[in-house]
Amino acid sequence: MRDIAHLSAVELYTEVPDETVRFFGDLMAMEVVDRRGDSVYLHAWDDYEAFTVKVTGHPTSGIGRTWLRAASPEALQRRVDAIEAAGLGQGWSEEEPSYGPVFRFTDPDGHPYGLYWHTRRYEASPGTRPSLKNQASRFPGRGSNVRRLDHVNFLASQIGPQDEFLSTVLCGRKSEQIMLDDGSLAAVWFTVTDKSYDLVYTNDWTGTRGRLHHVAFATDTREDILRAADVFLENGIHIETGPHKHAIQQTFFLYVWEPGGNRIELCNAGARLLLAPDHQVVTWTQAERARGQAWGLKTIESFPTPATPPVPAATTPGAIA
Amino acid sequence: MRDIAHLSAVELYTEVPDETVRFFGDLMAMEVVDRRGDSVYLHAWDDYEAFTVKVTGHPTSGIGRTWLRAASPEALQRRVDAIEAAGLGQGWSEEEPSYGPVFRFTDPDGHPYGLYWHTRRYEASPGTRPSLKNQASRFPGRGSNVRRLDHVNFLASQIGPQDEFLSTVLCGRKSEQIMLDDGSLAAVWFTVTDKSYDLVYTNDWTGTRGRLHHVAFATDTREDILRAADVFLENGIHIETGPHKHAIQQTFFLYVWEPGGNRIELCNAGARLLLAPDHQVVTWTQAERARGQAWGLKTIESFPTPATPPVPAATTPGAIA
Amino acid sequence: MRDIAHLSAVELYTEVPDETVRFFGDLMAMEVVDRRGDSVYLHAWDDYEAFTVKVTGHPTSGIGRTWLRAASPEALQRRVDAIEAAGLGQGWSEEEPSYGPVFRFTDPDGHPYGLYWHTRRYEASPGTRPSLKNQASRFPGRGSNVRRLDHVNFLASQIGPQDEFLSTVLCGRKSEQIMLDDGSLAAVWFTVTDKSYDLVYTNDWTGTRGRLHHVAFATDTREDILRAADVFLENGIHIETGPHKHAIQQTFFLYVWEPGGNRIELCNAGARLLLAPDHQVVTWTQAERARGQAWGLKTIESFPTPATPPVPAATTPGAIA
Amino acid sequence: MRDIAHLSAVELYTEVPDETVRFFGDLMAMEVVDRRGDSVYLHAWDDYEAFTVKVTGHPTSGIGRTWLRAASPEALQRRVDAIEAAGLGQGWSEEEPSYGPVFRFTDPDGHPYGLYWHTRRYEASPGTRPSLKNQASRFPGRGSNVRRLDHVNFLASQIGPQDEFLSTVLCGRKSEQIMLDDGSLAAVWFTVTDKSYDLVYTNDWTGTRGRLHHVAFATDTREDILRAADVFLENGIHIETGPHKHAIQQTFFLYVWEPGGNRIELCNAGARLLLAPDHQVVTWTQAERARGQAWGLKTIESFPTPATPPVPAATTPGAIA
Repeated sequence: MRDIAHLSAVELYTEVPDETVRFFGDLMAMEVVDRRGDSVYLHAWDDYEAFTVKVTGHPTSGIGRTWLRAASPEALQRRVDAIEAAGLGQGWSEEEPSYGPVFRFTDPDGHPYGLYWHTRRYEASPGTRPSLKNQASRFPGRGSNVRRLDHVNFLASQIGPQDEFLSTVLCGRKSEQIMLDDGSLAAVWFTVTDKSYDLVYTNDWTGTRGRLHHVAFATDTREDILRAADVFLENGIHIETGPHKHAIQQTFFLYVWEPGGNRIELCNAGARLLLAPDHQVVTWTQAERARGQAWGLKTIESFPTPATPPVPAATTPGAIA
Repeated sequence: MRDIAHLSAVELYTEVPDETVRFFGDLMAMEVVDRRGDSVYLHAWDDYEAFTVKVTGHPTSGIGRTWLRAASPEALQRRVDAIEAAGLGQGWSEEEPSYGPVFRFTDPDGHPYGLYWHTRRYEASPGTRPSLKNQASRFPGRGSNVRRLDHVNFLASQIGPQDEFLSTVLCGRKSEQIMLDDGSLAAVWFTVTDKSYDLVYTNDWTGTRGRLHHVAFATDTREDILRAADVFLENGIHIETGPHKHAIQQTFFLYVWEPGGNRIELCNAGARLLLAPDHQVVTWTQAERARGQAWGLKTIESFPTPATPPVPAATTPGAIA
Repeated sequence: MRDIAHLSAVELYTEVPDETVRFFGDLMAMEVVDRRGDSVYLHAWDDYEAFTVKVTGHPTSGIGRTWLRAASPEALQRRVDAIEAAGLGQGWSEEEPSYGPVFRFTDPDGHPYGLYWHTRRYEASPGTRPSLKNQASRFPGRGSNVRRLDHVNFLASQIGPQDEFLSTVLCGRKSEQIMLDDGSLAAVWFTVTDKSYDLVYTNDWTGTRGRLHHVAFATDTREDILRAADVFLENGIHIETGPHKHAIQQTFFLYVWEPGGNRIELCNAGARLLLAPDHQVVTWTQAERARGQAWGLKTIESFPTPATPPVPAATTPGAIA
Repeated sequence: MRDIAHLSAVELYTEVPDETVRFFGDLMAMEVVDRRGDSVYLHAWDDYEAFTVKVTGHPTSGIGRTWLRAASPEALQRRVDAIEAAGLGQGWSEEEPSYGPVFRFTDPDGHPYGLYWHTRRYEASPGTRPSLKNQASRFPGRGSNVRRLDHVNFLASQIGPQDEFLSTVLCGRKSEQIMLDDGSLAAVWFTVTDKSYDLVYTNDWTGTRGRLHHVAFATDTREDILRAADVFLENGIHIETGPHKHAIQQTFFLYVWEPGGNRIELCNAGARLLLAPDHQVVTWTQAERARGQAWGLKTIESFPTPATPPVPAATTPGAIA
């Protein structure tokens, strides 16, 4: 049952909203489409909906709400019923002007989500009208030219409850996972589309709830990512690791920190899709994960991987899988 | 209702099967996985199923059967019922050893299809075992390195009945179309996945039934397509047009003729996916189509576009949309 | 004897200087570095000298002066002597503030040139200072990101005298040529560096003197050119032909018209260099040329190829070789 | 004075010649063109001369002779005179059937070189004849498709004498260098062409003479290098580091170990050329070098970098600059 159509948008918290907005606008090639209160809305050029990222001024970094669109009004109701039954519902809201009624809930780890059916499509202005009418807005031709939001990788204090929630309540399909030698899950990759993942949960070794590992945006080519690396270099953006190819999911990646401290991934999957309706979950062992990335880049195991918001004694060896 | 999971494989007819097999094996980087009677089966490296293309010796070129996998046993039954109700069913067959029972049918124009649920997964041999276990077979590193079958573009004597059949009987979703000034459809693009198209029907100006315009295979990058062009040049393969970018669907493309005369497309869609559950069909007018491709390449209107099998007085101006 | 170090800069004439400057600045990713009189100077990011293109308001399109840098003060004197001996010298000038004394001359067809030794290096401002100090200015990250001027392709009323002049007076080395069936030259490609060409002369079928076929700029990758095509599409720039690969010289190319009407090529040669000190000229026959480009794109033979400035009854079938 | 035309070929020593030949033949896309004694000759597709790499069975890994072609017979004589005057000449040899008389010498650190004028051009066989006649042999379409030899990076027990030798005896031009805080040179990059480097010397911390850091081959695109990484992964070739972009020289790189243990680089410089006849050497300090590569990859300082042949207690922290 595909009741969730796709991941739609994310809200990012930042102590330096102006700089974060400049990062997304100038370097990630998004368009500022709205400003409301402490929030600025930005739109990636191939997004058919009204916005892709909501940047909100906040005392810390971190992720705010993650929005998912339901596949139909009936699908929305089915998922709302399931979420309510799981005791995670928080009721309806009309606070986002680009969406109709949004059902608010959290995952078991406390990350806020919103699920909705009605949406407002992006409407191009004279300055953003594309030459080809089968495209949401004009190709920006600047910075990294990211096409769309790709996935969110959350940290969670425990993976098991998230795994259960994604599978049974949201009806996601698990494509890959890391299972530690003690049988516990260290990370799970879930898809709600034909992409091989949309929502990822990785173990937060600090035991903190509700944190973010990274938000990822898709480019059309690996070359776009290589070009973006030069752009980040020239603009003083910290490149954490990459470009390289993940062993898990095989995504070509680059990780940077936006000025607010949140980790941002640029990713490209080539023509890889997960089309099998009976896909068998690929399980990676602790030993396999220790081998590093596809082309040999070692995962920085011993060094604490920052996550957002930071925790006091931030010793979080949650390396990039 | 997504009852069709994906396009699985195609059968191509050729008068020169050895040369056609060499084309797919050496230049399209596929592996010969089986030979039965007049047919040779080949597998593209990212296909989770046992084969991708079946090359069959035949007195003419053209397309044989196109296989689709159902999304579940229940989905299979629903579609079989609908096809039977439409009077297009031809009963069950067990002739393909890689599939369980296949329900055979044709579209209204007479192209043979097969629909099934049970399938045999590709099993790697020592020589084709990939280094990463989340991949069907090893990356070939030769020729065009096509990853998977992408779509089939059929010709049809009339588009209307195909449009109706794809929508209501197969539950495909139409993403784009060409509508002539007289209101009739010249071409329709349907998807059964999150790709923006899987099955395409273009008007056959000769009025012939059951012909093929082209079969397309996806590469990971546009660079793979540029590299393939050099490989085709060096190996005497006729390059018909491209590389260029389609206006319709925006696919980066290269069209060649395999030695048996069938048109083969190499295509790359970048990160483009059609994720909106309520996608609005994009309609192109006759005038818009006449403008040519995205970057200005003119569609060869006046020159007869060959299709397979050829028809006696082959005056088929069915240009590439 | 390598007395000419390299092609340095070109002056382009345009009736719409503001639009031409916007083209070079926004879409070709150059920086406006100076304005003097009717001229605007622009700099490509990897040019170690002070400017790359001089855009000059003029009643017609066309090419003004082409600047070459001598390999040493002695080399400058040797070439000045040879040019004077050929009767083509026009004396010294100090009109360009970025250069020391410039020796002015024309080729036999009347195209104005300037040759000099002393030059002013590009000096980065805070806004254009690169992160890596082995680079002239910061990577722009916009539009086509062209790296440097690559070559100039002039039209000439007769090729023979140009061929002689380039070989004996400028000491260029000829790499490739087109020889018609009557033994006359239709086009010659000359290099003064390790690139396989820097200066090209193509027959002007109108018999006009002093015209321009195109000016070319090099990108780092073919992907940059594909991205540029989207940028040109979105900005209403006419794409004349390409992307494709030339048979002659094998350059990957895209031809557009800047708003002033001059033809601009974006080109990429990959890792191709002409390193043999005794390179044997490659001669293409009329029949070979008629085969079109490397991957089969036909050269538009019958249609008059525009050149700049246009001539009254512009019937110039000077197709792109 | 450009008396050296270019780097021509290298001889590599290997204990496992069959495997090393398979590496260069299958994965580096070269053609075996000759076998003589313990040596196998291979040719890269764009090399106009008869061979590019000579693989020689040997008790250890390491580099044998490096061949340079003179720019003319007169240039050859000038350099021979200078080498003799430096006391490094070893007389003429006719042992290489693809070259005319070769003048043998070593650099001050003892690496064997050969300098010659007469050469035998590569002659294509029916199976390797290219479709375009301005190309040495047909495009291979396999593995990494490396186009040509790019540079050799030697280790040397002392850099000063090498720096002097390259500048004054071979008339190379230094483009970049690393200068330690004590004023000594840790590495020098020299060019004899318009490429920004052809011959590199890096300090051998073990004090051993005559060793090799790596030999590099150029691909047309960065994508070729990314594709090669997959090919190496699938074929069990150790990828040491990369893909990434060097800060020094800005080359996009991948380092692997061929089966004989020698480090091989695949490199791409984009459109970067060093055209200034009066290029100013770029000097990197110890602190600048410690910052790592262009996009942040840290140079592995503390870990001994292997070089060939290995030395007994191989504690050689000669990291990749």
